[in-house]
Amino acid sequence: FALLSTPVAAQDSLPSWNDGASKQAIVAFVKKVTTEGSESFVPAAERIAVFDNDGTLWCEFPLPNQATFAFDEIKRLLPENPVWKDDPAVTALVSGDVAALKADHNAGLIKIIALTHAGLTPDEFDERVQNWLATAKHPKFDCAYTNVIYQPMLEVLNYLRANDFETWIVSGGGKDFMRVFAEATYGIPPQQIIGSYGKLKYELKEGKPTLTKTLDSLFVDDKEGKPVGIAQFIGRRPIACFGNSDGDQAMMEYTTIDNPRPSFGLIVHHTDAEREYAYDANPTSSGKLTTALDAAPQRGWTVVDMKQDWKTVFPDDPKDGT
Amino acid sequence: FALLSTPVAAQDSLPSWNDGASKQAIVAFVKKVTTEGSESFVPAAERIAVFDNDGTLWCEFPLPNQATFAFDEIKRLLPENPVWKDDPAVTALVSGDVAALKADHNAGLIKIIALTHAGLTPDEFDERVQNWLATAKHPKFDCAYTNVIYQPMLEVLNYLRANDFETWIVSGGGKDFMRVFAEATYGIPPQQIIGSYGKLKYELKEGKPTLTKTLDSLFVDDKEGKPVGIAQFIGRRPIACFGNSDGDQAMMEYTTIDNPRPSFGLIVHHTDAEREYAYDANPTSSGKLTTALDAAPQRGWTVVDMKQDWKTVFPDDPKDGT
Ligand SMILES: [Ca+2]
Ligand SMILES: [Ca+2]
Repeated sequence: FALLSTPVAAQDSLPSWNDGASKQAIVAFVKKVTTEGSESFVPAAERIAVFDNDGTLWCEFPLPNQATFAFDEIKRLLPENPVWKDDPAVTALVSGDVAALKADHNAGLIKIIALTHAGLTPDEFDERVQNWLATAKHPKFDCAYTNVIYQPMLEVLNYLRANDFETWIVSGGGKDFMRVFAEATYGIPPQQIIGSYGKLKYELKEGKPTLTKTLDSLFVDDKEGKPVGIAQFIGRRPIACFGNSDGDQAMMEYTTIDNPRPSFGLIVHHTDAEREYAYDANPTSSGKLTTALDAAPQRGWTVVDMKQDWKTVFPDDPKDGT
Repeated sequence: FALLSTPVAAQDSLPSWNDGASKQAIVAFVKKVTTEGSESFVPAAERIAVFDNDGTLWCEFPLPNQATFAFDEIKRLLPENPVWKDDPAVTALVSGDVAALKADHNAGLIKIIALTHAGLTPDEFDERVQNWLATAKHPKFDCAYTNVIYQPMLEVLNYLRANDFETWIVSGGGKDFMRVFAEATYGIPPQQIIGSYGKLKYELKEGKPTLTKTLDSLFVDDKEGKPVGIAQFIGRRPIACFGNSDGDQAMMEYTTIDNPRPSFGLIVHHTDAEREYAYDANPTSSGKLTTALDAAPQRGWTVVDMKQDWKTVFPDDPKDGT
């Protein structure tokens, strides 16, 4: 693998990135930790890179895609579950009353997630997600949700892997939801995806091994949950962390403060209302970015200005003029 | 990688195994799933192999090594923790009263584990395990515990990896305990080790990212917990499973029953009182093997007769006559 490092660095592995400080910072870091014989060299086994998903690898507006999936599923399954009509959460959803869903600490939303994410086997759930991904379209971009992913970040994933990094997703989204598409979409296999999840129940049912999803003992892989998820699943401190919101701040800190290895933090700042969306302190959906943005200069985190730094936003999008 | 499969199969990758049904079954399975163009071919990404640890990869007698570690730690730390002397669990341990430790559903043992495994950072815990492994000696074999590992199983691990399998540990033992030595000892990195674990707490302490181990919400990776741990951490069904006790039966079933891929199950039966230990239905420690042994013929699981099948038991052990 050592022989590969020169050609990989020599060609442009990040063609969708404009030349500028962000691109230079990424390339400089990778060169730094892969230069054999240098003090900053990091052995391949310790080259762990973690990526948030919503807003970092794919679009999180107008709603996080997993929420859209849950809402679409409720509507699809309502005819065969007439009893749901008596549920205030379902009523609020069907009438588009988002405020009611969010009331009482998101009690309605949690009920919707429970109705669509629990009581199923992982295989049944996977099939539902696959069917949804195959048919649903993003309301602004009018294409499959798995196409509303960031081409420049795909290039970062590939560039890191070409330099013997192991790339992981660490997201507040559902682990099982992401595992359905992340391998085909990002090249990240299920065992490198950390997300929120509930207990599984195992039993032999009619002689067959059967797992059932529940929302019991929910692990929420967000904020302080992210470094915890990393420690539990990876057991090794990352040297590179990519996020886009305050929900990523704890894992950015865990990656970059007091790390005996060289480390790198990057925040995707959504500044492009035309090609995607522009938001930070007051997003209409998820993705609030204030404290992590404030901390970036002191911590040495790279802040990507999507509008300035990215030549293209989505793969094969003619609007982006590639 | 495809080019490698012929030479790997042609040489003897399992030199510590006597020729016989067990060795033949392992080699036949690997050949079956790696032969491109055959119906039984399994893509590399799905070649997941799971291994129990205690009694499958290393010796679990006279006590599971992690219990010995905990007992040794209590004795080492007692002078600096005089308050422990009032604890009935510590009193029972120091006086060698195992029955008292096991009373009331192992309440004493659990207390000993709590005193030695919680309230520490992962780094502090790792250092203690490393120090212990560097000095403690196995009472029968008079060498480091990390040398009381099974040479034939190391060969299986290497043989599978040479055939593009990903090798995982799935053990009732502590995830964090195993992660300290498994990479150097078995070639298995931390992120491929599933075991029992408690909640972690994350905070910035004096500005530094700090994780603290607890025993809260303990996940017990044993029996039905094993397929659950596999689904949570890997998210993909294994095609090969190696164990030695009834605690592995659920993951053996999960691997081999109703699996759309070809699958393989193997039980290490401890039959060699001279070179190691002989036990199954009535072990003096862990490792009870009855129902899984009974189920083996029906399930098509390979049962290794340690005395007959293994030319050598431990690496570089002159007693084994290698
Ligand atoms: Ca995000
Ligand atoms: Ca065992």
